[in-house]
Amino acid sequence: MSEKLHCKWNQSGCGVWTTTIGEKPQDNLLSIAGIKPRIKEINKMVDTGFPFGIEVEVKKVRENMVIDFPLDSDEKIYGLGLQFQNINQRNKVYHLKVDHYGENDNGRTHAPCPFYVSSKGYGVFINTTKYVSVYVGSANRKDCSKLAKAKDRNTDQTWTASPSADHIEVALKSEGVEIIIFGGPSILEVVRRYNLFCGGGCLPPKWGLGIWKRVPTLYTDKQVLDVVKEFESKDFPIDVIGLEPGWHSKSYPCTYEWDENRFPQPKVFCEKLKEKDVMINLWENPYVSPDASIYEKLYPLSGSHDVWCGIVPDYTLPEAIKILQNQHQQAHVNIGISGYKIDECDGYDDWLWPNHAEFPSGHTGEEMRQTYGLQLQKLTTEIFKEQDKRTYGLVRASNSGGVSFPYVIYNDCYNFSQYITALINSSFCGVLWVPEVRSAKTAAEWVRRCQLVCFSPMAMVNSWASEIELWTFKEVENIVRDVMKLRKRIIPYLYSAFSRYYFEGIPPFRALVMDSNLINMNSNQNISKLDDTENPYQIAASRDIKDQFIVGDCLMVAPMMPDQEEREVILPEGDWYDFYTGEVVGNGEVIKIKPGLECIPLYVKDGGIIPMVSEKSEKDSDFTLEVRCYGKAEGRYVLYDDDGKTFAYERGEYNHILLTTNKDKKGNIFGNVEIIRNKINSNFKEYEFRFMSL
Amino acid sequence: MSEKLHCKWNQSGCGVWTTTIGEKPQDNLLSIAGIKPRIKEINKMVDTGFPFGIEVEVKKVRENMVIDFPLDSDEKIYGLGLQFQNINQRNKVYHLKVDHYGENDNGRTHAPCPFYVSSKGYGVFINTTKYVSVYVGSANRKDCSKLAKAKDRNTDQTWTASPSADHIEVALKSEGVEIIIFGGPSILEVVRRYNLFCGGGCLPPKWGLGIWKRVPTLYTDKQVLDVVKEFESKDFPIDVIGLEPGWHSKSYPCTYEWDENRFPQPKVFCEKLKEKDVMINLWENPYVSPDASIYEKLYPLSGSHDVWCGIVPDYTLPEAIKILQNQHQQAHVNIGISGYKIDECDGYDDWLWPNHAEFPSGHTGEEMRQTYGLQLQKLTTEIFKEQDKRTYGLVRASNSGGVSFPYVIYNDCYNFSQYITALINSSFCGVLWVPEVRSAKTAAEWVRRCQLVCFSPMAMVNSWASEIELWTFKEVENIVRDVMKLRKRIIPYLYSAFSRYYFEGIPPFRALVMDSNLINMNSNQNISKLDDTENPYQIAASRDIKDQFIVGDCLMVAPMMPDQEEREVILPEGDWYDFYTGEVVGNGEVIKIKPGLECIPLYVKDGGIIPMVSEKSEKDSDFTLEVRCYGKAEGRYVLYDDDGKTFAYERGEYNHILLTTNKDKKGNIFGNVEIIRNKINSNFKEYEFRFMSL
Repeated sequence: MSEKLHCKWNQSGCGVWTTTIGEKPQDNLLSIAGIKPRIKEINKMVDTGFPFGIEVEVKKVRENMVIDFPLDSDEKIYGLGLQFQNINQRNKVYHLKVDHYGENDNGRTHAPCPFYVSSKGYGVFINTTKYVSVYVGSANRKDCSKLAKAKDRNTDQTWTASPSADHIEVALKSEGVEIIIFGGPSILEVVRRYNLFCGGGCLPPKWGLGIWKRVPTLYTDKQVLDVVKEFESKDFPIDVIGLEPGWHSKSYPCTYEWDENRFPQPKVFCEKLKEKDVMINLWENPYVSPDASIYEKLYPLSGSHDVWCGIVPDYTLPEAIKILQNQHQQAHVNIGISGYKIDECDGYDDWLWPNHAEFPSGHTGEEMRQTYGLQLQKLTTEIFKEQDKRTYGLVRASNSGGVSFPYVIYNDCYNFSQYITALINSSFCGVLWVPEVRSAKTAAEWVRRCQLVCFSPMAMVNSWASEIELWTFKEVENIVRDVMKLRKRIIPYLYSAFSRYYFEGIPPFRALVMDSNLINMNSNQNISKLDDTENPYQIAASRDIKDQFIVGDCLMVAPMMPDQEEREVILPEGDWYDFYTGEVVGNGEVIKIKPGLECIPLYVKDGGIIPMVSEKSEKDSDFTLEVRCYGKAEGRYVLYDDDGKTFAYERGEYNHILLTTNKDKKGNIFGNVEIIRNKINSNFKEYEFRFMSL
Repeated sequence: MSEKLHCKWNQSGCGVWTTTIGEKPQDNLLSIAGIKPRIKEINKMVDTGFPFGIEVEVKKVRENMVIDFPLDSDEKIYGLGLQFQNINQRNKVYHLKVDHYGENDNGRTHAPCPFYVSSKGYGVFINTTKYVSVYVGSANRKDCSKLAKAKDRNTDQTWTASPSADHIEVALKSEGVEIIIFGGPSILEVVRRYNLFCGGGCLPPKWGLGIWKRVPTLYTDKQVLDVVKEFESKDFPIDVIGLEPGWHSKSYPCTYEWDENRFPQPKVFCEKLKEKDVMINLWENPYVSPDASIYEKLYPLSGSHDVWCGIVPDYTLPEAIKILQNQHQQAHVNIGISGYKIDECDGYDDWLWPNHAEFPSGHTGEEMRQTYGLQLQKLTTEIFKEQDKRTYGLVRASNSGGVSFPYVIYNDCYNFSQYITALINSSFCGVLWVPEVRSAKTAAEWVRRCQLVCFSPMAMVNSWASEIELWTFKEVENIVRDVMKLRKRIIPYLYSAFSRYYFEGIPPFRALVMDSNLINMNSNQNISKLDDTENPYQIAASRDIKDQFIVGDCLMVAPMMPDQEEREVILPEGDWYDFYTGEVVGNGEVIKIKPGLECIPLYVKDGGIIPMVSEKSEKDSDFTLEVRCYGKAEGRYVLYDDDGKTFAYERGEYNHILLTTNKDKKGNIFGNVEIIRNKINSNFKEYEFRFMSL
């Protein structure tokens, strides 16, 4: 009944092996995204051997392609897309499908990336546009070599509903599939190879790292300008205004044309905001209204089924891409629009074409569902790229292959702790995730949400529906303003972190296991040695760490939950310092903190260097960088800079500035600045560096 | 890309047409269930023409088989399995899959029957063992003839997320499939044809309609006997005791062998309960423990994957069936066990083999998942049938094809109103559903749950985990006892209702739309004419009726919710009478009632006749039937009877007793008893009839 298939691995880069089993499919995730693996950068990485022997088995079981990977009993598995509740995905089953997150980690998510990374230091990527099921040590084959033992549930307290299996089974309905294996040896190196293979991380424009604000859907041009004025008068920074559906003459489905009543002069409107240095982001969804000027042209290029009575263009077709790109360019980009929020491409269960829908390119509804978010990101990114402008936007669906697209995923989940888990998991699958601020029941919740979003890829205030403004809770207005300003001040640090995402594939926001030596402590084999009283740190580290994450080179964030007054923080080995005071807080231990509402807990590694825009220079032409130096170890930090808005960096026009520090016994800091690469174009304003010991 | 397939309809019975498209599959739902359509009974029904012209279109879209059925704008669609929240399934999408109900009506359910019935009076049955997706007017093909119009969500309040399509699309991944169309003309007649085609309804043994009680999992034989004694001493009826997993020597996976400590002498234990006229039902799940005596024999006949470290036998193989049947017969049935509760065959998401699992018969995991409940029902029913005994039990998974199996579906949902919706929906798909009593937070809730379960296919008290006994809430002990005794007294009425399920395919518990002329009022076209003040009844009837149902010929149940003190009751046209008082309550209107805790609201149609065991004769040899006669119309009722426990009825050994009534102007009743069929064997005890005007 089943037929074994041969699996021949080809090395396609340093630590990267690929195989195609069965028929080569029409497309895969990378071909749809138009991505070429960045093999040159991968080949700069440390060499590593093929992680499995010949243990990968592939077979065809009737209509199913089944791939079997080995799994050790103490192995942890991370990734498999943007999951919201679990970090170690062992003993789970994921049916990977583009969909909204429905309160369960079951594979239906906004970015169901068919990629996982093992704590043993290797990764597996199933490069397919089909639905994929992954049984992560949860499909117990009766012939498996390390069969779990049956237990008597009547009397045995150790009985479990999920006995652990010694393999990962991947299944899909397909004639053929490409599999890619990434070596490590560390988790971070696996993820870096995966990110670079998928095109490398995106580098947002600098303005994209500022403060975002979305306005009510039916606002007019004048009302939008008033919002900006109000931010100014209240001394809150604002960098990007997002317009919701009402800017369209019709929406759901969309015309992509300005409503003549609400925005009679879009070009003038854009110019007015440009004067204030505020960028404009436009909401859209991909379903084209019969009233859109491009409807007739797109009709024959669209799928068999409508969504909300709008056609669904097949954006794997160059003709269709061109039509939307031209319209967007003329109506939006040429007058100064900076980017898009691409809504509803995740389907939200059944608000989409069916799986069996037909598309003119020959792709099925299933293949289109898995990749529509990629198609839309590619299409819109290209409009800007053609004008040598960077964009930064929001999207509700992505997949592997979207790593290099400058889009951040959002959704309708509003669970604070799941927000953080998603932020951590985003680092295992090459996507960015934003814990948007939408509303709050209390001032404390408002503060905690604002603090969290300021330590995420996009500082997005999307509270137009709740009508809560940043200053609504008077008693915390100053605290909220402080964290918004802090966000603006750390842009040099965040921007450098994103540059490493682009150049080296290092996620700017990421899980602790990627940086620390928690991995070894995480081994299941150690559990028996743990002692809750003598060594609580090991207990904590053996669990998933779902409430702390790393930003950039040396900063650890431990957000407070809205209703939390105190919490535990796990400090990996090495001295850790309080970001605000510079005081040492611990080393390889669990501390309990009670930080007060005014601060989000932030910790810096020994020797950590954090360059910040100085408080004074914020809007000045005299641009001073305050270089915060933490701890006793010698510091070394590479600051990245470029023009902040074009693709000149891809042509080599960027600077690398090496900041090094050491301290004498009295704590006096000796800082050194060395420009190790200086290729920046004339737009560049040189920094003045002011080293500060903390 | 897509290929149209030819669809040739063959009439295979009166009002039944079938077609096979593509390759004839290895199996279908009826062949797995071993069911032969009851064409002879179908051919006794009224003739009806083919409901569609040649409008059914079938095409192959890559790996998908897609079937298109027409759908009128005012058409309602019922069925598509045991759904818990909606009755009219229009504008929904169902991915029909055996699974536990996960709080969403999306097709994952304990009985995902691929059958629907239209308010226009026809039905469609996709007789397949594959997963089926059904888009009930919810897939908007852009070429459909009555395309819904796009609306502007910015400003149009009538915008909807689910614009209605003019067709039902059915899709499955398959090389071939059988489709069956049933004519009506009424909804009830469609359902009758479907039920008879699937083997006809089951007729439970009479004891099965009594009171059931499940005991704690680790109870010993002595403790079980004490439970029965306690019921007796408290004057509560008890007819069946259910043993939970602890009777097995090991469970999860199971041995099917008695635990020697808790049940050292199972035969003696069974005999003791038999003396008390109490039957025994055994819990089991289908996963075989390595410690089971039958493990070695079943091993080569089982699937590629284990569940909870137990093997999964392939019960489409006669050898495997025989092994379990022999073991069950010897260890259970021969010593007096009356039936089974077959747990965990629904998978509960991922507690099952994967879809790609291999089974020795050649079926895939997917096909086995859709039919495992059927296989187990068939297998166990046969054990009893071979001994000419009827059984009645519980199962967590079924499908079309299971209509004739004497099993009732249960699950872990405990939502009272969803319990009722499921009871109503069970009538559209040929399954039985039990709203088990498990626990209650208040005495009122306990009462309402006990009342509801007494008007369901199985009066099951499954409260062992909560440790609430029928008499725990002292203040309502008498009310609970009353309804338990009422259940026992109406067994003749229920039993006759079940006989019509067997002989005619009429569901004993069913939706109001099957009996009343609510259907026409239900038309969407009438909505504009509705007047909330002048004609609130039409408003109510245009909605799904989710909280009232029909039992047998003439009884309507309108259960009170646990926290409800008053409610509205929709009375279809014709006079309706209060079951308890005989007073007229209304006609074609909506009434508001406030019935008090002591009664579940019950209403009887004009001319309704309800035969009940008289209060006195309950445990007597003098067996008097109280014949309750309601209203002014002449009554006509056919009472069914047989030996209550064997299959003699299938061999023609049953009685039909015609009860007719009329009243004079003073309300005096004239009742007449006519034995119109008398083929009962000597076990039969003749009734004495006492007509009572109410």
